[in-house]
Amino acid sequence: MKRERILELLEQRRFKELREELETMHPVDIVEMLEDFDTRRAILIFRLLAKEDAAEVFTDMNSDMREDLINALTDSELEEVMDEMYVDDTVDVLEEMPANVVDRLLMATDEETRKKINVLLQYPEDSAGSIMNVDYISLRKEMTVAEAILKIRQVGINRETIYTCYVTEKKKLIGAVDVKDLLTAGESRLIEEIMDENVLCAATLDDQEDVAKTIKKYGLVAIPIIDHENCLVGIVTVDDAMLVLQEEATEDISIMAGVSPNEDSYFGTSVIRHAKNRSLWLMLLMLSATVTGEILGRYEGAMAVMPVLITFIPMLMGTGGNCGSQSSTLIIRGLAVGEIQLKDIFRVIFKEIRVALVVSFLLALVNGLRIYIMYGQNIMLSLALGITMMAVVVVAKSIGCTLPLLAKKLGLDPAIMAAPLITTILDTCTILVYFNIVTVIFHLKG
Amino acid sequence: MKRERILELLEQRRFKELREELETMHPVDIVEMLEDFDTRRAILIFRLLAKEDAAEVFTDMNSDMREDLINALTDSELEEVMDEMYVDDTVDVLEEMPANVVDRLLMATDEETRKKINVLLQYPEDSAGSIMNVDYISLRKEMTVAEAILKIRQVGINRETIYTCYVTEKKKLIGAVDVKDLLTAGESRLIEEIMDENVLCAATLDDQEDVAKTIKKYGLVAIPIIDHENCLVGIVTVDDAMLVLQEEATEDISIMAGVSPNEDSYFGTSVIRHAKNRSLWLMLLMLSATVTGEILGRYEGAMAVMPVLITFIPMLMGTGGNCGSQSSTLIIRGLAVGEIQLKDIFRVIFKEIRVALVVSFLLALVNGLRIYIMYGQNIMLSLALGITMMAVVVVAKSIGCTLPLLAKKLGLDPAIMAAPLITTILDTCTILVYFNIVTVIFHLKG
Repeated sequence: MKRERILELLEQRRFKELREELETMHPVDIVEMLEDFDTRRAILIFRLLAKEDAAEVFTDMNSDMREDLINALTDSELEEVMDEMYVDDTVDVLEEMPANVVDRLLMATDEETRKKINVLLQYPEDSAGSIMNVDYISLRKEMTVAEAILKIRQVGINRETIYTCYVTEKKKLIGAVDVKDLLTAGESRLIEEIMDENVLCAATLDDQEDVAKTIKKYGLVAIPIIDHENCLVGIVTVDDAMLVLQEEATEDISIMAGVSPNEDSYFGTSVIRHAKNRSLWLMLLMLSATVTGEILGRYEGAMAVMPVLITFIPMLMGTGGNCGSQSSTLIIRGLAVGEIQLKDIFRVIFKEIRVALVVSFLLALVNGLRIYIMYGQNIMLSLALGITMMAVVVVAKSIGCTLPLLAKKLGLDPAIMAAPLITTILDTCTILVYFNIVTVIFHLKG
Repeated sequence: MKRERILELLEQRRFKELREELETMHPVDIVEMLEDFDTRRAILIFRLLAKEDAAEVFTDMNSDMREDLINALTDSELEEVMDEMYVDDTVDVLEEMPANVVDRLLMATDEETRKKINVLLQYPEDSAGSIMNVDYISLRKEMTVAEAILKIRQVGINRETIYTCYVTEKKKLIGAVDVKDLLTAGESRLIEEIMDENVLCAATLDDQEDVAKTIKKYGLVAIPIIDHENCLVGIVTVDDAMLVLQEEATEDISIMAGVSPNEDSYFGTSVIRHAKNRSLWLMLLMLSATVTGEILGRYEGAMAVMPVLITFIPMLMGTGGNCGSQSSTLIIRGLAVGEIQLKDIFRVIFKEIRVALVVSFLLALVNGLRIYIMYGQNIMLSLALGITMMAVVVVAKSIGCTLPLLAKKLGLDPAIMAAPLITTILDTCTILVYFNIVTVIFHLKG
């Protein structure tokens, strides 16, 4: 309804009311609305936004829309927007833009900001430095609480960065003061007296995922980031940490489905890029699966004698694959959230084998009964398939739980050892287990 | 090293130093350390903790350890711990404990807290009410900034709840004041003048996942929770939101691997429970796979005439399954993070079919070449397998992307339409596509 109202006001060129309406909206909602509008309307509305809202909307919108907007805005309009943006957001925007746009954007910032931007641009992707906020409040230990509050009044424009203030001495981080303590301590007390010297911090080159996990683990609102000389250079805030954790979960899930992850959204990724992200694994797995095919081919003789054996292949391969990916998925997620460590490998295997015995007994029983009923009460066939089922499940769960841990040990991403790869590996194992068992039981030639 | 030092101090009964050492540690790290110690040592150390630390350690530890501790503590010790705990944490602890322990814990709290606890215990699991914090700061609009700061000094003990203060009138939420504004506004200004009347809020019965997503979307530190009469009853803070989002991601990943999710950790779940969580899907999928087997059985004749056809089955079924689960996984995750909506269904299908055409062309080419080289330059066989591959991939991607959206439409969890189920469904499709194509090309009888 809000959206219809806005469109109506826009059509009727009632800009004053439109501006008032926009002021009651959250920038995040404005972005969502603009993304559904055509470019002409979106630009018109953008021009009506209050300065701070415009900066936040500009930061949050997708890169296509941002490029359209940059092309439409005059240099002085652009300068106004850039002035209101936080440096770290500017850097994120620049990283996504083509070179000619970057030049225009950099022209629109003052020199001091440009210097800060250049420093930030040099941190490696996925490092704490690349996501940190450089607008934080630093206090000196000799300040009184009143002086500290005065300083916050002067510089504290950014709501993200005010909840914890950091105390530095020659730029080195020596403590932190929560804003609560500033509010509740007497005005004449020294920062030194109320600061907490046990400050958790991270380094610029730390992996952004580790930093986000630390924020989550300790329930922080922000964490200070120091450089190699222990100098405070920025902070990472909890809202950025949440986005990092979500991105990392999406990345893990992609890899677990055999898709190379990329940072754009589903619709923001082109068809060719989607195809590229998916082909590599498919190709690899397709070629690996030919091994299973070749092995299966070796038992043509056995299948010619007992054609019924063919009909159990999909069920056995399917169950083996599912059992294996259940185990590998649980281990991969356990490793990701820190519930499982490398040193737990034997505990994991022991647990999975016990689970496999329970599960496989149930499956073998149901399956054996089904075969007994459906295939003329052939007890030997039931037995053979029951034994195969148990063996397949135990092998599947053992391999499924071991490979992610092995990958971790080798410094690889455990997520690659998920369903697609595990299933392909287990297909081969299942065929081998199956035909080795039935050729013995039914005295078939391999 | 810290751990060794603590153990050493404990052995030598140097409790004063030990207490000092513990004071420098973060409660989260103390919990991690205690979990590795034996019960006797853990209890000894717990007794040495400062009151507030003890409450936080007690909140964070796993439920087994907490039960041991409750059995070891005297009633008055327990009362001290419970006095320092936040009401919402107490409720979380109570929900995990056996009835007799709950009684003992409730005895250790004062009556007012007990009332609050009983209210919180009545909210449904996974609702905003069940995770909200009831220790928040509410101001009146007639207060001056100075009076508001005084109130925070008096009641603001909880760091989580102070960053945003809420303004109420007859208990109804009418505005919010950021602590930054309190610090930077003149002392004599009225709350009314500086408060923000556009407050985002959620209701007690809202799903906790939706509330967590709102906090993430708008980058909030906390969100106020109102009841059905618009009265403010609590707040949900960003640290709880992060845990909720992580739990939900873990749940999705479990379901996507065909494992019923449960809230305990991997090692915290018993073997029988693990087996139970995994058997249902396995059983269902195993029985469904027999359909594929039966259909495969129908083509025994064709395979007898051309035994080489058997060797391509694992590759085709594997590739079909992988293609389908790539698509379904991307759609499931897209739905979960809000990138894809139900209304996008035709855009999704159109995109997936184009991706499928590109991918399948590549796969068919490589596969056709391989067969041409490996099977005596049999051009017809290459062609047949190439065509099958293309058809399988297109079918797999179409079905893979449609089913999660269909599940969503039907009000089911899209995550059930992940690899295990998709693979099983696609196995049948693949066999049908394959044999329908080859029987035509090679004039075989079905």
